[in-house]
This record gives sequence, structure tokens and C-alpha cells, in this order.
Amino acid sequence: MREVKIGIIGLGTVGSGVAEAITENGKLISERSGVELVIKSVCDTDRKALSGAVCPSGAAKTSRAEDLTSDEDIDIIVELIGGIEPAKEIIMESLNNGKHIVTANKALLSECWKEIFTLAKDKGLFVNFEASVGGGIPVVRTLRESFVSNNIGTIYGILNGTTNFILTMMEERGLTFSEALKIAQQEGIAESDPELDISGADSAHKLVILSILGFGQEVYPADIYTEGISNIAPEDIVNAKKWGYSIKLLAIAKDTETGLELRVHPTLISSSHLLSDVRGVDNAIFIRGDMIGDSLLFGKGAGKEPTASSVVSDIVEIARQVALAGKENPIPCTLDYASGSKNISKIDEMLLPFYLRFSVTDKPGVLAGISSILSEHGISIASVSQEERNEGGEVPVVILTYKAKEGSMREAIAKIDALDYVTDKTVVIRIEE
Amino acid sequence: MREVKIGIIGLGTVGSGVAEAITENGKLISERSGVELVIKSVCDTDRKALSGAVCPSGAAKTSRAEDLTSDEDIDIIVELIGGIEPAKEIIMESLNNGKHIVTANKALLSECWKEIFTLAKDKGLFVNFEASVGGGIPVVRTLRESFVSNNIGTIYGILNGTTNFILTMMEERGLTFSEALKIAQQEGIAESDPELDISGADSAHKLVILSILGFGQEVYPADIYTEGISNIAPEDIVNAKKWGYSIKLLAIAKDTETGLELRVHPTLISSSHLLSDVRGVDNAIFIRGDMIGDSLLFGKGAGKEPTASSVVSDIVEIARQVALAGKENPIPCTLDYASGSKNISKIDEMLLPFYLRFSVTDKPGVLAGISSILSEHGISIASVSQEERNEGGEVPVVILTYKAKEGSMREAIAKIDALDYVTDKTVVIRIEE
Repeated sequence: MREVKIGIIGLGTVGSGVAEAITENGKLISERSGVELVIKSVCDTDRKALSGAVCPSGAAKTSRAEDLTSDEDIDIIVELIGGIEPAKEIIMESLNNGKHIVTANKALLSECWKEIFTLAKDKGLFVNFEASVGGGIPVVRTLRESFVSNNIGTIYGILNGTTNFILTMMEERGLTFSEALKIAQQEGIAESDPELDISGADSAHKLVILSILGFGQEVYPADIYTEGISNIAPEDIVNAKKWGYSIKLLAIAKDTETGLELRVHPTLISSSHLLSDVRGVDNAIFIRGDMIGDSLLFGKGAGKEPTASSVVSDIVEIARQVALAGKENPIPCTLDYASGSKNISKIDEMLLPFYLRFSVTDKPGVLAGISSILSEHGISIASVSQEERNEGGEVPVVILTYKAKEGSMREAIAKIDALDYVTDKTVVIRIEE
Repeated sequence: MREVKIGIIGLGTVGSGVAEAITENGKLISERSGVELVIKSVCDTDRKALSGAVCPSGAAKTSRAEDLTSDEDIDIIVELIGGIEPAKEIIMESLNNGKHIVTANKALLSECWKEIFTLAKDKGLFVNFEASVGGGIPVVRTLRESFVSNNIGTIYGILNGTTNFILTMMEERGLTFSEALKIAQQEGIAESDPELDISGADSAHKLVILSILGFGQEVYPADIYTEGISNIAPEDIVNAKKWGYSIKLLAIAKDTETGLELRVHPTLISSSHLLSDVRGVDNAIFIRGDMIGDSLLFGKGAGKEPTASSVVSDIVEIARQVALAGKENPIPCTLDYASGSKNISKIDEMLLPFYLRFSVTDKPGVLAGISSILSEHGISIASVSQEERNEGGEVPVVILTYKAKEGSMREAIAKIDALDYVTDKTVVIRIEE
């Protein structure tokens, strides 16, 4: 059995999970893969994490990353620090020293894809990143290998467990966003600073990676129109349900005639769509390809063991090449993913149906006023719901529209929100059909 | 760009789809994979299929498989004939001649796994088979690579589109099995001889392959307890729904304390389970692993393009190794999947909850008679439904039981079916919780 030597940098939840998995399931892994994974060194600046790490007695423990990146003995560096620096420096240094990389770092890959893969290709080295999207869900390998002959048309992802948990709590228990967020924080699902999740930024990072794999071209976080879930009210979820929809924070990537549509925002999707059944912290990715048709991958999008499972699968893929082909002949996936040059559509140009919830003082002519402004902007109404009259009081008016240009919608809503009988900012949620 | 030469044997639906995909999406495939797939020859004994095949002008067309298996120029043989012979001879001959194999042949792999993989391992050659289970769904690669560090606990599969289509028709339109089968045949979904599908045998072949990958040990079709769907009546589907269940033909593989449970049969599953939403010809596989937790892969389980997509992904995997590592250094997945030695449980020993539909003459004491026989066999009733009285006429009595030993259930039902007031064979459907 040939040995492959690994260095793990970053011993947080995932890193410690990887060390444990290799230590405890090593026999299973080597039976199935034909190679033996040996943890040569582990590294963390947190002394407690370092001393607590479960790894073989022979493994060195250090707080200095350079002990690993410069160790000639190490074949694969597993970077699990997260964030841009020092993760980027560690990866670039490791590649320069001829080491393969496994990482789960979506923030770094989405910002610095080109730099990292240009160097990796140049050096003939692997950079594997299954765990960067969808935790234990094998979506990277599926897009990269299984769907290799497909032109990818559409990707829909529920890519963030925290926001999906919050929306599920709101739906199931009728909670407000703040109440649901508090529960998520109490249960350790949301961070004490939850901004990266609830703003949609984490989903956008992941969508960048899926878009690069799916469409084969450079995409950056700034290319993704991103909107979080903090404006969603429980009544929006109730209203949506009445019309047969669920509200999900959806990451959407579509190859359309006018360009790539890349966006992350709360979305009304049909309750009969499989994605509407993805509840709690679970994640799922729906992929439509020209050969495979409609496909869905569902599973745990985060957590120690699911994510570690994906990291280990990445390590094994490289280890098999390193051990069996010899260090000089590995076959990394150094494809030119950045060769595409499709236009990336501007959000204002996109044609979408909308859910609109207006807060108005109930008096005659209100609906007529709103409708005429929508109509002036070329927006057609598909249905209206105005539940009970409350003459002189406040009532919500909910409207579903046919497809309308986002830019026109924005202008119309600005005008409507300026009307004297409109008492609060109008809630606008896009619908996906 | 390095060329890899392919021979395709069998130009039916899938084979012609593979030839078309490589011919028409060749540029996309080579951009992504870094190798060029060249169809050197295609083979079919059907002259019409042969002359109609879409492939590059340079490709040879022949009716003799040995022209391909003995061609020194060909790197990969793609076997898409199906069935045991001559497919087996072609594969063994090709391996003996140093050629890698891609196949979708579940019948052959499930019967002759050991023979084929022993030779492949001996020769250091790939045998790839993604399309043998779940059409366009990447379940083979997922089990083999993505979940490599997981102990697999449970696999549930809806692995046969024809039977799922029939059950969906029965549910949605209240049709009988025969009526739904006729529609499936009219729509070209069921074969004119549908036995392989409706008997569960096709699902059992596929479950053999998933079990070998999941549990790493030899399994054969004879190890799978197999029951088809022809006894299911529309009223069973209606009854199941009332209790919150759907009826699916489920392929089940579980690693339990007493051994592997391997079975294919109609099954009541909770309507809230993702698998219950898999409708029509779609397939899905649910996998529970000790690290990934619960995971589901959903997609098209059959059809020209989805299946061809999987075949092409298998070809590309081999082609990259052949082209980039050199013909002497490929790294096939020649793992020892047959090393496990878990006991395979007998169906009679399994403990399962049951749905029972009795056809009885309605008279006093009927329910008491049935219950007492169940009770004598240690079977506890969880709920009973006997909708309306029809004194002296025939009525159905439906019972859900708690977990009971299958063997005891069989004995009890034999006794009950012999009672004078029982007018028809009792319908017994297993429940999965």
C-alpha cells in the first residue's frame, strides 16, 4: 500500500473532522482507494485546537503554516482556515512548492479563482474543492465529471443552511425573521455575526463556483446580484403559500439568449418543486443540462462530518494519482474553466414575475392608483389579494405580476412608495417559474 | 490535444445517443476534459441501426464485434448491447486484449461482477459503469468516490422508471395496474414484454450494483428478495394516502446488526419523504452514510440522452488517464469490492411493519377472527380501517401492523386466507419508516 502524506492547516470544525475521519476511518478509506493517507502534520494558531486534534501519534503539531508548506515530505496541503488571507498565501506558497491543494474556501476561490488555477495549471497540480459548495453534497464532482458532456442551462441552489433554517422556522412556526434568527443562533446554526449568511453573500460565493464549473467562464462575486432574507415577513410566507409557492433563498444561474443570469435572492418557487421540500439546514442543487434533463442533489450543506467527507474524497482523488501514477504523472483537473465569454446580464434588464406586498391606508382608489402606476411601467397584474376592508386603517395589498423588467419594476415601486396612502416600503420578491 | 480511440458496440437507443453526443458535443467535451474522443468504429448486427448511426465520416461501421475487440488502435470499448451474451464474451475478450471498458449492462454486472473485475484488476484496466444504475444520475461515481470515507448504512432507490410511471398513473388517475401498464406501453415507456421491469428484476440488478459499491462485498441477484407491482390495486394507493403514505417500488439495502437486508418490493413510504415526490419515469437514490448523513440524488433514470451523458462521463474519465498518464500508467478503480463478508439476512427473518388489505364477507366476528390469528403469530395491530358496513356483502378491511417477523406474517396470512369468510387473497405490502 503506497503512502501519501498530508498536512492539514486549520483545525476548526471541518479541519478537526478531517483529521478524525482519516485517523478513524483510515482502514476503510485505504481498502476502497488502494492508498494509505498519512497525516504528517497539522497546524493551527489556536493552541487548544492544536492540542485537541485527533490524529495519529506520529503527526507533528505546529502553529506555523510554513512548517507544512515548506515540508518536502508533504504531498497534499489541506487548507481549512477560510477567508482570503492568510489562506491565499498558504495556497500559493504550497503550489509554488509543488504541493497539491484541497480546500473548502469558497470566499477565496470565488475571488481569486483565476490566480490560483493559473498557478496550479502551470505547475501541474490539483486544487480540489468539493467541500466549498454544498458541504457533503457531491456537486463539484458531478458538474466537473458526471455532466461533462452537458451544456448546463440552469442551476438553482439552496446553498446556505442558516438562511434555509430561518425561513423554515418562519414558515413552520409563524415566527418573524428576528425571532427565527435568534433560535438559529441559540442552536449554533447561525454565527453571532450572521451577516455573511443572511445577506446572501455566502450563497453568492458558492454560486460563483457553480457558475464557473457550469458555464466555463470567469465569474466573480460582484457579478452576482445579491439580496438577503431580512426583509421577509411571516405574512409573505403565508401569502405565498396561498398561491402555491414557498419562499426560499435561491441561488440562480441561467444561460439565457441574452447572457448569464446570476442572482441570489429570496424567491417564490412552486410548492410542487422538489426544492420547496428542502427544509431546515439541508441544502440542494437543481441542475438542468441539455442531455441529463432535470437533476437534483440533496444533502447536508454544512457540519463537521458531511463537510469532512467531501474533503476526504478530494484528498483520496489526489492521493490515488500521486501514489499510483507517481509524483511526476498526476492528472489534475487543470481545465481552462475561464475560456467562456458570455455576457453577464444586468439585474435591471432581467424579465421576471414578481410578488409585491403594499402597505396602504385602506380608502377608495388605492388599488386603482397602484395599478395605474404599474401599468404605466408596462407591468401586468396576474392576481391581486386584498383580504378584508379596514376603511381608513392599514391593509396589505398583495399582487402577483406577469414577467416585467426589473428596472421598470424598481421605478414603479419608487413612485408607489412615494404615494401618500402608502404607509411602508413595498416588499418585492421575485418569482421563479 | 491527445486523441483517445473508442469503439462502440451496440447502437440501440443509448449507443446511438453516445455516438451523437461525442460527434456533436465533441468540442465541449475536449475543452473541459483536455482530451479528444475519436470514434474509431461502431458495431451493430442490425444493418439499419448501423447505417443510421451519427458518427464522424472516418468511423468504420461493422457488424462484427471482433473487428473492434481485436483492433489494436482502440483504447476503449463501449459495450451497449445489454444482456449476458454476447456482451460478456465481448467484454472479456476486450479486457484480454488490453482495452478499457465502459458499459451500462446491469444484468451482466450483477451476475458476473467478480469474473469481470478480477480480470480487469489483473490487467490494470478500467471497467466503468455509471449508466448501469439510475441513467443520468451520478450515483456510481458518488458512492465510489464522493462517499469513499463513509460507512453506508441505508440505500433506498426508485430505480425503475417504468414501474414508477405506472404507480404514478395509478395514483394520479385512479387507474388499475393493467390500465396504467397499457398507457405506459402506448407511450413507449414500458416494453411490449414488460416482465423485467414490473417483476422488480431490473431494480434488483441495479440494487446488486449499489450494494457492492456501498457495502464492498459480493452480492448477486439471487440475494435480493424481489417482488413486483402487479398485485397493487388503486384502492391500496388510496388507503395508503389516508394514512400519510405513498406506494413506491423501492429497492432497499440496509446494513443492520444481523446482516445486510436486500430487497425490492412495493413499499409504503411516508408522503413527507423526498422519495414520495419522485413521480413518473424519474428515478432517485437516497443514501445514508455515517459522515454525510442523509443524501438524495434525483434525475432521469433512463432515456437516450441522460444515459448517454453518463456513458460519456465514464469514457472521459478513462480517456483522461489514457491520454495524460500514458497507456502504461492508467489508474483504474480496481478496488477489491468483494472483500466484505457480512451475512445476508433472509426475508423471513426480517422485522417489518405491514399494510394488510383483507377481502372479507361482512359479518359479525370477522375482525375478531383475523385479529386473533395475527395475535397468535405475535403480530400487533397499529390501526384498522373498515369503512362501511355491508352486512353479508364483501368489504375490505385494512390493517397496519407494528413490526412483525416476515415469516410469522406469511404463516398468519396463509391461515387467514383459508378462512371461509375471506373471499380473496390478502394483499400484503411492507412499510418502511
